[in-house]
Formats: sequence, structure tokens, C-alpha cells
Amino acid sequence: MEFKDMDQASSYEDLKAAKPFNIKEGLSRQRINELLISEAGLLSYSYACEPVSKSVLSALQALSDQQQVIEKYKALLSGKIMNPGEKRCVLHHLARGAVLEGTSVQKDDEEKGAFYKAQLEKIQSFSNDVRKGLIKGSTGKSFDTVVQIGIGGSDLGPRALYIALDNLKPHAIKAHFISNVDPDDAAKTLSQVNIETTMFILVSKSGTTLETLTNRDLVLSLMQARNIEGFIPSRHMIAVTSKTSPLATSSDVLDAFFIDDYIGGRYSATSAVGAVVLSLAFGYDVLAQVLEGAHAADIAALEPDITKNAALMDAMIGIYLRNVLGYPSTAVLPYSQALSRFPAHLQQLDMESNGKRVNRDGKPLRYQSGPVVFGEPGTNGQHSFYQLLHQGTDVIPLQFIGFKSSQMGLDATVDGSSSQEKLLANLIAQMVAFSRGKDDDNPSKVFEGGRPSSLIFADKLDARTLGALLAHFENKVMFQGFVWNINSFDQEGVQLGKILATKVLNGCEEDQQLLAFSALLK
Amino acid sequence: MEFKDMDQASSYEDLKAAKPFNIKEGLSRQRINELLISEAGLLSYSYACEPVSKSVLSALQALSDQQQVIEKYKALLSGKIMNPGEKRCVLHHLARGAVLEGTSVQKDDEEKGAFYKAQLEKIQSFSNDVRKGLIKGSTGKSFDTVVQIGIGGSDLGPRALYIALDNLKPHAIKAHFISNVDPDDAAKTLSQVNIETTMFILVSKSGTTLETLTNRDLVLSLMQARNIEGFIPSRHMIAVTSKTSPLATSSDVLDAFFIDDYIGGRYSATSAVGAVVLSLAFGYDVLAQVLEGAHAADIAALEPDITKNAALMDAMIGIYLRNVLGYPSTAVLPYSQALSRFPAHLQQLDMESNGKRVNRDGKPLRYQSGPVVFGEPGTNGQHSFYQLLHQGTDVIPLQFIGFKSSQMGLDATVDGSSSQEKLLANLIAQMVAFSRGKDDDNPSKVFEGGRPSSLIFADKLDARTLGALLAHFENKVMFQGFVWNINSFDQEGVQLGKILATKVLNGCEEDQQLLAFSALLK
Repeated sequence: MEFKDMDQASSYEDLKAAKPFNIKEGLSRQRINELLISEAGLLSYSYACEPVSKSVLSALQALSDQQQVIEKYKALLSGKIMNPGEKRCVLHHLARGAVLEGTSVQKDDEEKGAFYKAQLEKIQSFSNDVRKGLIKGSTGKSFDTVVQIGIGGSDLGPRALYIALDNLKPHAIKAHFISNVDPDDAAKTLSQVNIETTMFILVSKSGTTLETLTNRDLVLSLMQARNIEGFIPSRHMIAVTSKTSPLATSSDVLDAFFIDDYIGGRYSATSAVGAVVLSLAFGYDVLAQVLEGAHAADIAALEPDITKNAALMDAMIGIYLRNVLGYPSTAVLPYSQALSRFPAHLQQLDMESNGKRVNRDGKPLRYQSGPVVFGEPGTNGQHSFYQLLHQGTDVIPLQFIGFKSSQMGLDATVDGSSSQEKLLANLIAQMVAFSRGKDDDNPSKVFEGGRPSSLIFADKLDARTLGALLAHFENKVMFQGFVWNINSFDQEGVQLGKILATKVLNGCEEDQQLLAFSALLK
Repeated sequence: MEFKDMDQASSYEDLKAAKPFNIKEGLSRQRINELLISEAGLLSYSYACEPVSKSVLSALQALSDQQQVIEKYKALLSGKIMNPGEKRCVLHHLARGAVLEGTSVQKDDEEKGAFYKAQLEKIQSFSNDVRKGLIKGSTGKSFDTVVQIGIGGSDLGPRALYIALDNLKPHAIKAHFISNVDPDDAAKTLSQVNIETTMFILVSKSGTTLETLTNRDLVLSLMQARNIEGFIPSRHMIAVTSKTSPLATSSDVLDAFFIDDYIGGRYSATSAVGAVVLSLAFGYDVLAQVLEGAHAADIAALEPDITKNAALMDAMIGIYLRNVLGYPSTAVLPYSQALSRFPAHLQQLDMESNGKRVNRDGKPLRYQSGPVVFGEPGTNGQHSFYQLLHQGTDVIPLQFIGFKSSQMGLDATVDGSSSQEKLLANLIAQMVAFSRGKDDDNPSKVFEGGRPSSLIFADKLDARTLGALLAHFENKVMFQGFVWNINSFDQEGVQLGKILATKVLNGCEEDQQLLAFSALLK
């Protein structure tokens, strides 16, 4: 296996030389029918509206091959050190069962596949007991609420998945999330829940995350202020943490579920970090379906032919848009209100993984890496920032997501069509509008067109398709990291802020800049 | 008054030639103390961490003067046609009382200031009656819930303001929002409210917005399905619309409050569009404070000296970052959970206003206009996309927002500091970290620094400061539009999608591209 910068691959030159496909003129019915990839039978990926010609596609295939993208993915699955900065293997796929035949990942004196499986079994049993009322709160009441306390990956992914599944069926346990160190976040959540029937899930791999411990203590002090007879805080608190963290053996928690250093926060939604809250809220069977969907997408992502591997095609087209066509940002536009926080999760996943300016060996990159990622659900975005997407001075590539049917099935026919039909009509209309544009005598009404987009769609947003969708983007981001020759699994860029914040809290230590800003905000 | 493109102003050449200030090396205590502007005594704007030298600032002042920015603002206030595409005046300032001495705006046979005032008086009286239980639901119960049905500006601004104020005091009436044509959005909201005690606010200026009318009808059909004896839907529905819309005189609504064509959706939060829902939820006095704060900021924005006008300085620095330094996006980072949806509102405000590729006369621009705007609350963003902001290959200018104290005042001391102190310590740390960076022997731990940011801060996020904050950004965006010589008040870019969506709903009319995508999503 060879690690080299993207611009050392001969196919990168071919890619730059290849002529883009003209989507403004050339978007035929045949193209729409053919440029379509099925992903594990759960999702479909359409790239008809991407400016990729045959020669672009063949250069992208060659680039994927020369950068040994699938080989690196297999190495990762087999437990090789693919996070070189932190000298760690990368095992979020294994947490949902992806094993390369004949391999087994031994770390820290255990087989990691068995470790993750044991955690899931423990989560299954615990969540069943809580949901059946066998485990009760300290004042004898059954739990009807869980509150996850965590930040970053311990918040965004699990929260996005929870919201995405919240419509699917009536569930006895409602979830809230506290993430921000802003004290209003915890105070507001606490004002909305009955603490006697609430289980708090403290999520911190190290057990030392400042925001999370502070929120734990804030929650504890608000609990105490209520002065409920017989209330025992530790019976309302569980931890998701690493085996070696101070939380793992703390008597302040009822139980602990384990994660490890081989799954980064932004890749942890399918580990115990997401599994505990989703199993408590929806039941373990729903979580199991999320894992199944993710696993199926992981297996589909092993295919080396880009025209048969949706995550890989998505990754390679992203490279083309970013590095050859020079587009610095990308919008994620789910036509599903249930995915309202999914763009925020993808924003972390993508920008934290690939927002790097050095390669995996620490040498400065000679090309751009990860783009800015943002998004809001359509149709809302249409009435907001789509103006710039259609008629702004910059081109912003778009990633649409849609589903043939709604989740709840409640709908009404107005003017001859249902809301779901209107939703899909808008999605279809936008893809075509961005692609072909429109001429007009009035220059303010001209749409240039030629604005690239892709579409991921499925029959319905359920637990399985959601799992596949999550894995699609995780794998896309990983593949791009392999092509760019960067480490997508560390996040050194978060450290400096932490160090300086501690300095501020310690009185600034004569640091003139910190002192001056501190004085302003006193 | 003269309208000319930015590159026709001689000062634009001076701006390009001016040397940027080196914030990595030169961020002194003195600079932090001096580069500070008070905004109407409510907000402070710090631009110490922006790469603006004396020569840059003087070129920006000259550019503002040559583009007659303040003169154009005054013309707008006095009722001149400043939305040339739609041949309309622009009156959102007037809706909160901004009048130029000696002027009066007559349109449609009425004095517009009096028209807006009369609407506010009506809103005050109506919201008082509802809150006192003098106006009851059709089954005799007092209202405890309002649901705003609207999209785009009828949703994002009012929702952002509602969330921002929700912590401030216990309020008898809770608000929800339905915006997406996705039927799950309405179905989920309806599952959470008691329709007997709920008032629906239908917001559509034209009375014909597809998403909003569809959601109204979906709500009506879900109401009927509940089959509550004596329930009369029209007694639970009010409208915010224009006088001439079909909703204005409909017998399907209990009452109607009026807006007009001179306030665009994204500028309508301080018109009846936001005023009705905020007055019902919090009481008219809170809304009045929002208007006061916005009005004070509008008056402060009349100052032509950029070093004394925070909104103007913010606008001009934005031009420098976008056009001279070439940064295509900007992140809005409020260190306040209550502002969690404020970035989504600013995203619409900015991208819909200034995402234009032609000037106000329809000629293509020779320079970039509005940037991509995105953001999430800090500290959450720190654990998410800040990695790219610190160490990505692109520079993303940052707009921080912070408050000295929290809203709810509930806090706990952990490790010697409160949550609020930790929140501010993080904000301070990040500004300094982005500015000065950090060297390291390990290249993965190097922070380049030199990443520009500004800070808007206030003592506390209350109704007045919130109004000022809203107006700050409205005025910033307006000023940038004047400099770029574009029309910030139309949105032709939303039309094509609407036309094509209707075509899809009508069976695609032989349009091959629409047919092909429709078949995929069948």
C-alpha cells in the first residue's frame, strides 16, 4: 500500500485535462436513467446532473485506483493503523459488524469485534429493562425521558438520528439533548422534564470533556435544588465512556457502556454513543435496523468500480468539483423535515474529517481539501438561500436527498395533489432548474444553469435507509481523505482553543490579547 | 443620487492597493480596546481581529462615501423606489418607526407609517384579549398554544426570535411553527398540540403561497379527522396577509392583520409577520421592546463615519473580505444557545438579498456579490466544524456573537468557574486562536492563524438587544447591496423552481427531464 499526494497520481493530470460534461445542454432522459447506482438495495444515487463526461469518469476511476482507495478501506477494516497522527486503527465499521473475511482485529488484549458486540448486547438488555419498567427511577417511577449530555459527535449524530426516527412510531421514551456549555441549554431542558422519570446519559470518551462534565454538574445542582424526597441522582445517570475513564467505575452512575479510542466522535453514532439513546427511545430492534442498514452500505462500499459504488462515486465527483472545478462549498438539501439536523451532522463529519491543510505525513497540501458544508431541509431552503444558489456569482454544488413516501402517512389532497407529491415535485423541479437554467429578456430573470447536483433517494426514511445514508456519507468522507492523502480521523484543530480557554479561566496568565478581550466581556 | 458599479469607484482601486493589517502579528491590547463601536448603547462591535489597516479603513470610508451608502439609506427611509426590479419602496424600517424628519411615505392612498402603527395597535389589542382569555377557542377553552404556518421569511425570522426569547420569562402561550410542505412537518406538530386550545396563524403576503395554503388545508383535514363536537376551525385561525389577498376577507379566519408589498419576507420579522406570534406568545410589551431595539439600531445606522457605525463598518469589512481578499463564505457563531436558529435566519437574509449576479440595472457584475453564510452556536461548533476553520485549506471569516450574562441565570460553579464564564472563556480563546495561530514542531499541530473575525456583544440577550441585533444584520446586508449596486430586495431566483414544480404536478407536459426524474421517484 502506497501513500502519495493526489497530485503525484498521473490520473490527476488526466482529470484536469478532461472536458466536463455540459449539464445545461446535455441532460437527456437516457442520462437520467443510466447515471444511477443502487446502494445495497436501500438507496439510489443519481449523478446525471453532475458535470462528469466519460473522460472525467474514467480519470476519476483511475485516480481512485491509483490512490488505492478500496485497498486502503480494506486495510482500515482489517485493523491497520489508518489514523497515523494518533497511531490508532479506525473501527467504526466493525462496531456495526463489518469484518473482512479471514481477519480479526486484536487491540488492547481483546478481539474488538467481540468487544463491540458485547456492548450492544448489554445495551439491548439494559434498554429492554428500562422500557419494561424493570429498572425504575429512585422514587419508584418508570422512566419516560432520556437526556443525552454530550457535545460534538456525542451530540450531533445521535440527535440527527433521533429526530429522523422520531415520527416512525409512538415511543414511550422521549429524548432530549444537552450539549452547549451555555448554562441556558441545560436549564431550559431541565425545565421541560420530570427528573423523577428521567435518565441522563453522560457521553464522554475520555470522561474529561469540559462541557459535558460541567453540564453534568449543572444538572446535578439543579436536581438538588428541587429537593425531592428519596431522589438519588446516581440512579438517574448512566455513562457512555471508555473503559479506562474515571466515569467507567464511578459510583455516581448506575451503569456504564463502553466505547474506545478507535472510533472518533463524528463516526460514533453507530457505537454505544448513539446506540444507548436510540435503544432507550425506540427499542433495541430499531437500533439494530440502523446498524444493518449501515453495515449493508459498508459492504457495498467495497466495490472498486466507481459506477457501481455510490459512496465512492460521490467521493470522486466531490474531488472533481472541489479540486478541478474549484467550488469551495457544498449544500446538503434533504427534502424531509425529519432530516432537519442531518446537515449539521454532515457538517461535522465532513469539515472535521477533511478540513486539513497537511497530508498524513505533515507536509502542506498543494491542493484544497474538505469544502464548507451547510444545508437546511427543502422546501424551506427554496424560500431562503436558494436565491444565491440559482443566481449568485458563485457556483455551489448541491446534494439532494429525497424519499418517495412520507414517514407518518398523514396527508391531504389540495389542488389535485398531496403534500408528498408537492414535496417531490419541488425536488425534481429544482434539480432540473439548477441544471438547465432559463433564458429571459429581463436579465434579472435569467438563470444561468449549469449548477451541479446529485440526488440520493429511497422509498422511505426508515431505520435501515437512515443507517445506509449515514454510512454513505461516512464512507464518502473517508474515501476523499484517502484520495487527498490526509488523515480524516484526527482533529488537532480543536486543541488550541481548549488550551487558551483554560488560560482565560486561570486569569489569562499575562496574555495581553486574552486580558483585553476578557476585560471587554466582564 | 448616483447608482454605479463598485469597480467604477476610484476608492475600490485604493482598497485593492491598500496593505492588509497583519492580525497574526499585530493584535495588541490597544487595538482590541480601540477598534470598538457602540451600537445605539445596546450592542458593541469589535473589529480588532479583522485585517483592516488604517489605509484599508480609509479606502472603505471612501468607498462608502462614493457609493453614497448613507444617502441611499436615507432615500430608502423617505420612501424612494429602492427595489427597482419590482418598482417598490422598501419600508421595513418604517414598520418599527424609523422616519426621516420632515418626510412622510404616501403609498396606496395612505400614509404608510400610520398604516403600520394601526396594525400594531390592532395586534396589541387582539393579543391582550387572547392572553386574558377574552377571546377563546370554539369549544370554550382559553388559548395556550399558537402555531405559525408560513415559509421562508414568514418562518425563519419569527422562529429565530421566538427561540431567542423563549427563556426570558414564563409565558402562558407556547408557539410552534409549520413551514415545510413535507406532510410530516404538519402531522408531527399537530400530534403535539391540543387543537381546542390552539390558534393557527396563517402567514402569506399574497395569500397564495403553495406550501402555506397546503399546510393550512392539511391542518384543517387533520382537525376534521379528530371530530371534536362543537369545534369550529375558523375560530382557531387568523391570517397575516396583504389587504388585497383572498385571505384578508375570508370567512375561514377569525381575524386578519395586514402587511404590504413594501416589506420583503426576509425583512418582515418586525412587521405583523413576526409581531402577531411574538405578541401572542410573550405579550405585546416584549414585542414593543424588540421594535425599540431595532429602531435604535436603525437610527444609529444613519451615521456616515464608518468608525462610528457598527452596521456600516461590518458591511464594509465584509466587502473587503469578499472582494479584495476573496473569501467566498462566512460563518456566524453565536455563543448563546438561544440564538440556535439565528444563523438560519441570517442565511436567508444575506443569501437571498445579495445572492445576485446582475446589478440593479440588469448588467452582469464584474465582481462577486453575497457570500455563503452558515453557522451553529458555539461551543457546539467548536466540537464540530471549527477543525476546518482552524486548519482547513481555505480561510473562512467569522462573525462571533456573545453576551456577558446568561438569560435564565441558573448556573453552577464547577472547577472554580461557572458555565457562563466557561462559555465566554471559549469565545475569547477562539478569537485569539484564530487570529494569532500557533507554531509547533509537529506540523499537524500548527495553526496558521491570520483568520479574521469580528465580535458583536451585549450585556444580555433580551428583547431590546435582540431587536438591535436583527436590525444590525438587516442594515449590514442593505449597505452591502448599495456598495455592490445590486437590488437586495427582490428574489427572482425563486421563480423558476416554482414554475417547474407546477409543471411536474401537471404531469410534466412532455418535458423529458422532468418526466425522467418523476419516473425515478414514483
